[in-house]
Amino acid sequence: MMIPLLKEAVDALSALPSIGEKTALRLALFLLRRPEEEAVRLGNALIRLRTEIRYCRVCNMISEGDVCPICADSHRDHSVMCVVESVRDVMSIEETGEYNGVYHVLGGVISPMDGIGPDDLHIDSLVERVSSEDVQEVILAISRGMEGETTSYYIKRLLSGKDVRISAIARGVGFGDDLEYTDSLTLGMSIKNRTPLR
Amino acid sequence: MMIPLLKEAVDALSALPSIGEKTALRLALFLLRRPEEEAVRLGNALIRLRTEIRYCRVCNMISEGDVCPICADSHRDHSVMCVVESVRDVMSIEETGEYNGVYHVLGGVISPMDGIGPDDLHIDSLVERVSSEDVQEVILAISRGMEGETTSYYIKRLLSGKDVRISAIARGVGFGDDLEYTDSLTLGMSIKNRTPLR
Repeated sequence: MMIPLLKEAVDALSALPSIGEKTALRLALFLLRRPEEEAVRLGNALIRLRTEIRYCRVCNMISEGDVCPICADSHRDHSVMCVVESVRDVMSIEETGEYNGVYHVLGGVISPMDGIGPDDLHIDSLVERVSSEDVQEVILAISRGMEGETTSYYIKRLLSGKDVRISAIARGVGFGDDLEYTDSLTLGMSIKNRTPLR
Repeated sequence: MMIPLLKEAVDALSALPSIGEKTALRLALFLLRRPEEEAVRLGNALIRLRTEIRYCRVCNMISEGDVCPICADSHRDHSVMCVVESVRDVMSIEETGEYNGVYHVLGGVISPMDGIGPDDLHIDSLVERVSSEDVQEVILAISRGMEGETTSYYIKRLLSGKDVRISAIARGVGFGDDLEYTDSLTLGMSIKNRTPLR
């Protein structure tokens, strides 16, 4: 009883993460009940997002132009560079309002299990930037357990000859988190790297 | 840090039910990581669904043609008509495989609170079908508590002069449901309308 038009929409929606077939059907039937403009707007927004998006040629952040707004901003501190895995990470750090440097998006982490090696990531361009730009400090903000650690270590080694400070974001118990539910690796680090109480 | 292309996609996605802004962002970033064809296919499927869909001129079910496959099927029993609220209900009943009659989709229930009266629903055409087609039985399969009851009662009254049997789907405890968690109205009905054990 699933007519082809509906089936096609449900199939395409349920290819999205965390959207099963039941949810996809509910979303499709919702669109049918709404004015035509809404479905057209949604459909076109998704197509345009994917076909018109560009990536900053400096830091690989998503961008509408050749260079992203952060790299183009002369009020930001271009001597501090934060290295992250993904576009989402840049957005998360920007939301904190605590950071005024620039970024470098790797596009993933080194993961032999998934067949992702250093050459699949924007690591060459990171080294190139550190060599050619006036970068004083590189902050490694790569999470994701062992693979993140491996990636951080690999980058640290590559940059070891350069005249640049290398730091990593602090690891510790989240604000408001129960110690009981914090994994022991994180909890151990939070004790080892304790800070003076101000 | 949300560039306009991304913001537009996130806004349109989060207009869907049960999709908040965080989920919308996750879905949009997922599409960015996937091949371009996937976003284009999804976008076009949603646009086509809404702009090319038609409704069966007999029963108001969604359709690609003028008349839906169920109404056009001569192997179905056109003397039995099941009256439901929505397109989704037709799909749910079809999935059971227990029904071989035809349908009539009302497009909602009478709801004074939401300003929905009988004229906003496909009730006139229901009465017209019962009068002109050779309908022997009308099964009211309208759920949704008080509003559903009101709608069923209203239709029953309209059809009372016609030579047609009117029935309603059985109410009772769901297969595998705990009595403890069944609402008392349903549980009461399940006792009142008990059936002989076969």
